[in-house]
Amino acid sequence: MHYVSVHDGISERWGIFSGDSALLAPRSRGWSATLLDFIRADTETRQWQTEQLQAGHGEDWRKEDIQLVAPLPRPPRNVMCLGLNYADHAAESQRAKGQELQRPDHPVVFTKATSSVTGPYTDIPLDTTLTTQLDWEVELGVVIGRGGRNIPEEQALEHVFGYTVVNDLSARDLQFRHKQFFLGKSLDGSCPMGPVIADRHAIADPHDLTLWCDVNGERQQSGTTADQLFRIPEAIAILSRVMTLEPGDIIATGTPSGVGFAQEPPRFLQPGDTVECGIQGIGVIRNRIVPATAPAA
Amino acid sequence: MHYVSVHDGISERWGIFSGDSALLAPRSRGWSATLLDFIRADTETRQWQTEQLQAGHGEDWRKEDIQLVAPLPRPPRNVMCLGLNYADHAAESQRAKGQELQRPDHPVVFTKATSSVTGPYTDIPLDTTLTTQLDWEVELGVVIGRGGRNIPEEQALEHVFGYTVVNDLSARDLQFRHKQFFLGKSLDGSCPMGPVIADRHAIADPHDLTLWCDVNGERQQSGTTADQLFRIPEAIAILSRVMTLEPGDIIATGTPSGVGFAQEPPRFLQPGDTVECGIQGIGVIRNRIVPATAPAA
Repeated sequence: MHYVSVHDGISERWGIFSGDSALLAPRSRGWSATLLDFIRADTETRQWQTEQLQAGHGEDWRKEDIQLVAPLPRPPRNVMCLGLNYADHAAESQRAKGQELQRPDHPVVFTKATSSVTGPYTDIPLDTTLTTQLDWEVELGVVIGRGGRNIPEEQALEHVFGYTVVNDLSARDLQFRHKQFFLGKSLDGSCPMGPVIADRHAIADPHDLTLWCDVNGERQQSGTTADQLFRIPEAIAILSRVMTLEPGDIIATGTPSGVGFAQEPPRFLQPGDTVECGIQGIGVIRNRIVPATAPAA
Repeated sequence: MHYVSVHDGISERWGIFSGDSALLAPRSRGWSATLLDFIRADTETRQWQTEQLQAGHGEDWRKEDIQLVAPLPRPPRNVMCLGLNYADHAAESQRAKGQELQRPDHPVVFTKATSSVTGPYTDIPLDTTLTTQLDWEVELGVVIGRGGRNIPEEQALEHVFGYTVVNDLSARDLQFRHKQFFLGKSLDGSCPMGPVIADRHAIADPHDLTLWCDVNGERQQSGTTADQLFRIPEAIAILSRVMTLEPGDIIATGTPSGVGFAQEPPRFLQPGDTVECGIQGIGVIRNRIVPATAPAA
């Protein structure tokens, strides 16, 4: 099942998506108002709604009439991200910084502000007086369905609601200048996400998915989630050992090689560029970089 | 005015606090349900409620009958923290790591998970199989009242709702092992906060406040907010240049010297210890470290 969130001109809604059309959850009693509410609902409530939608009880919308927004347009807290989680990307990053190659013993985890989340096809404003080094990172996003503490690896995937595509856009100048990654990763609009959440039953093996990133139609990144250093069950176990995970938490699981700053010469996004990120079995997000309008106080 | 959040046994409520008693906002039409709702309300709504409370229209509760919780028990997103923002603490940290003293040119910013927030007098569970290096950091917390992007320094303090006391408890082993600070700063219960939010009009100069931390009654940290490297207006300007700030955002503004890991020999919190953090004009938070009960999956 592929879940989407849409904006119908009045409010945020959610439903299931077939490629050509979406079946939206009715605005009626007994139905979750948003996809986040649905994820947070108890098993019976979720099951009833899913069965209703599968039986065709929903509002049928054609693809061209709906505006997809990020599946969780406003996550309940910051997006958690694993840094340097593919061997080839860890190597290119360290090479670009003149450091020796070291496979991390522990995952590097940072966050992106909730305000960075934006839609799968939404334009991304770039203020070139703020950053001249906006870079791409295609990542498999894991959406937690059932929270918990001290989740064992062998049960971790049962806590996953589903998977989505994340572009962890990164302002490299800010990221490295401020030492901790948070600010350089948190520009407004720097976390496009979607187009759907593929529920975990729709993905046979989350570690056997190809993922890629194109800029202006030219392939930049091309990898497979098989190459993750810390795999999803291990990441969930490590995170939930430290903190209680919650429904709606998003974990971006790192990016393969091919980012702009590690290329020779380095290459960054410019207004007018289109950046496209795709993951097998989930879909493709496509965002145009546009000049930021005058800053408003 | 000192604002508090309390739990009355049924739900979260808010009110104003006089030291001996609290006047709680009634559960009636026209009133904000929580302090976060109040902070998010428009100026008129806020003003009306404040006037009502000042005129005594509220539920009078004696101090011993209420259980103070964190002023924002569940902030709308991760707590943002400035690292190494006092010269003496930056120096002790770098000395302890064998690095040369360097005053940062740009603030170091990281986040603490929302699930780390806990009450001003709540016990803090310590799982010694997870960390053996839990450390204290008294910090002035700034609560944003009016959001915005590109907020100029000279208008920044007008965007502040008020100030609170934060103990940025840090698991040093996790913090340094994972490189990025997020995980070591995000243990459940590692962000005690309160006891009140002093609204900004109650604090004549946020950069002329003494702040201190005692462990078992013994002074560990003692400083003044005058020594902050990046002051509040500059921090708000830098953050809001990158991302849209929102009502209810919390910015912890760094800690003075005297943390445990920089002492010789290093000293860390143990079950049974009591850690107390205070800031002039705001109040004191006091938390006991207790053994964590068996981890639940």
